[in-house]
Amino acid sequence: MDTQSVIELLESRGVTVREVASIVLRLQQPYNASLTLADCEESVRHVLGKREVQYTLHTGIALDIMAERKQLPEPLQSILERDESLYGVDETLALGITSVYGMIGLTSFGYLDKEKIGIIRKLNEDHRRIHVFLDDLVAGLAAAASARIAHRGGESAGSAKLRRPDA
Amino acid sequence: MDTQSVIELLESRGVTVREVASIVLRLQQPYNASLTLADCEESVRHVLGKREVQYTLHTGIALDIMAERKQLPEPLQSILERDESLYGVDETLALGITSVYGMIGLTSFGYLDKEKIGIIRKLNEDHRRIHVFLDDLVAGLAAAASARIAHRGGESAGSAKLRRPDA
Amino acid sequence: MDTQSVIELLESRGVTVREVASIVLRLQQPYNASLTLADCEESVRHVLGKREVQYTLHTGIALDIMAERKQLPEPLQSILERDESLYGVDETLALGITSVYGMIGLTSFGYLDKEKIGIIRKLNEDHRRIHVFLDDLVAGLAAAASARIAHRGGESAGSAKLRRPDA
Amino acid sequence: MDTQSVIELLESRGVTVREVASIVLRLQQPYNASLTLADCEESVRHVLGKREVQYTLHTGIALDIMAERKQLPEPLQSILERDESLYGVDETLALGITSVYGMIGLTSFGYLDKEKIGIIRKLNEDHRRIHVFLDDLVAGLAAAASARIAHRGGESAGSAKLRRPDA
Repeated sequence: MDTQSVIELLESRGVTVREVASIVLRLQQPYNASLTLADCEESVRHVLGKREVQYTLHTGIALDIMAERKQLPEPLQSILERDESLYGVDETLALGITSVYGMIGLTSFGYLDKEKIGIIRKLNEDHRRIHVFLDDLVAGLAAAASARIAHRGGESAGSAKLRRPDA
Repeated sequence: MDTQSVIELLESRGVTVREVASIVLRLQQPYNASLTLADCEESVRHVLGKREVQYTLHTGIALDIMAERKQLPEPLQSILERDESLYGVDETLALGITSVYGMIGLTSFGYLDKEKIGIIRKLNEDHRRIHVFLDDLVAGLAAAASARIAHRGGESAGSAKLRRPDA
Repeated sequence: MDTQSVIELLESRGVTVREVASIVLRLQQPYNASLTLADCEESVRHVLGKREVQYTLHTGIALDIMAERKQLPEPLQSILERDESLYGVDETLALGITSVYGMIGLTSFGYLDKEKIGIIRKLNEDHRRIHVFLDDLVAGLAAAASARIAHRGGESAGSAKLRRPDA
Repeated sequence: MDTQSVIELLESRGVTVREVASIVLRLQQPYNASLTLADCEESVRHVLGKREVQYTLHTGIALDIMAERKQLPEPLQSILERDESLYGVDETLALGITSVYGMIGLTSFGYLDKEKIGIIRKLNEDHRRIHVFLDDLVAGLAAAASARIAHRGGESAGSAKLRRPDA
């Protein structure tokens, strides 16, 4: 399992690193005018390199795919088909992604999941497929990549000593 | 320690149950047209009756008050005075409130903390006082009260058997 | 979806309410000598009545069952077959159960998952089936039911006024 | 704010990096026989280099110190003096440390907080001071440092390609 295969998995579900990066840019540019799309892509790729992020994406997307193929046991199959508003397992899973850069990503996650910017909206409006998990997971991924940029900005502003390669 | 004293504590910091309830109404009315401000006030009071919510509010507000009085040890005093954007302890604490009605409240919390509706905005713009914790805690409280209403709506719609007094 | 069907789902995977209750009794008896197994069973049933707990159990157990039937897409199928020690999605899901009674259940969850008391150990040693999720979910369930009892004990000790039916 | 000042803060409260590392060694040695105390010290220092970990430690320890000096507003002062078993803010804060290496650290945190190994036990039995927060924070720190070691072991075992300097 590596970063490239999780990127391919996302692409097979209609999500590119660039689209996630453009959400990150929109979230972080107000705080950092010199930020580029390439910086944001690098941050998304870095988050996608984390093992627990890869595991979480594989699990959530597998559930979406099996729901599409009507392979899930009931009552789970019906719950995911209806995209039950009280079903919170998708948000819980996303927390496992958001939290890799600390609790600071929590706010951005909730905001994105409600505002449904960019690819998150497209996933939500794609009625040919089931994306119960994927929209939350993409929101979590964008939130984590944003938090990573925020941490680095803070650090470089605060103290050169703290500008570590492993923030 | 009881619900009334935590309500008085909130009022002493400029937050009324009614103002929190009006945020809840704004969040939940799209899903439930017959919802009233009184329903939302009842839900906020219910959340405020939970012991861990009371403990969390007492702790966060104590930190705000002591920061105002410059009684905190350094470097914490300076961090709170600057309302450091990377300081995430306020969001972590709010999680302790939001989660009393499950993970479903997480999204609303993030949204509110970013959009700063109603009293949350007022707290944020009040420069005579320090509200590093309180704006997050109020967002958490409104999110939990919204989640509680969402759960009850879902339950009554789904099955009368599930309409419990203790959702 | 109701409490009875989730109890039947647990039984089909080898877990009874009584076995979960006996873990709760072991955790809480040191603090409350008059506690009975029947009290603990009632608390487990109460937690199982929560919608998000039901959703979480249905999701996690579906993943276990599909892994057993080799129906999951790769690489997820292989990860669950190996019960990869770094796979943390099961713990993340359990957090969705534990947190319904606040953060206080967190400690008990971690303790149970490490010590593997009673039915949790049996699940772990059952090599005919896959229980990647179920052992964590049962630990989460027992932790939540324990936290609920702790809250009520604290409340009745503290103030009769607080002894609510909906703690 | 830097790693050295948070190490000095911990030492002023009776906790050394070496003592935390010895807990990490005890947790991880069963899985990795060649692990040394120096490896564990390095991991603890790495976790202590994270900004959100530093912020969390400064906040929790400030609350302990102010409780000792009887400087907290009531009812918080009395709650911390009694070390109220239902007070869960200390566990919530610890979650902010544990989660920097993903949810995998959650189990170890709960286990340590219940079993109170090494310095955690000493803090708990020190009746001259108040350590409501510190014992949880040290458990969170040891859990995060353990999770970091587990992640690296898994990675190097799994694939050399994944052995990154910034796991």
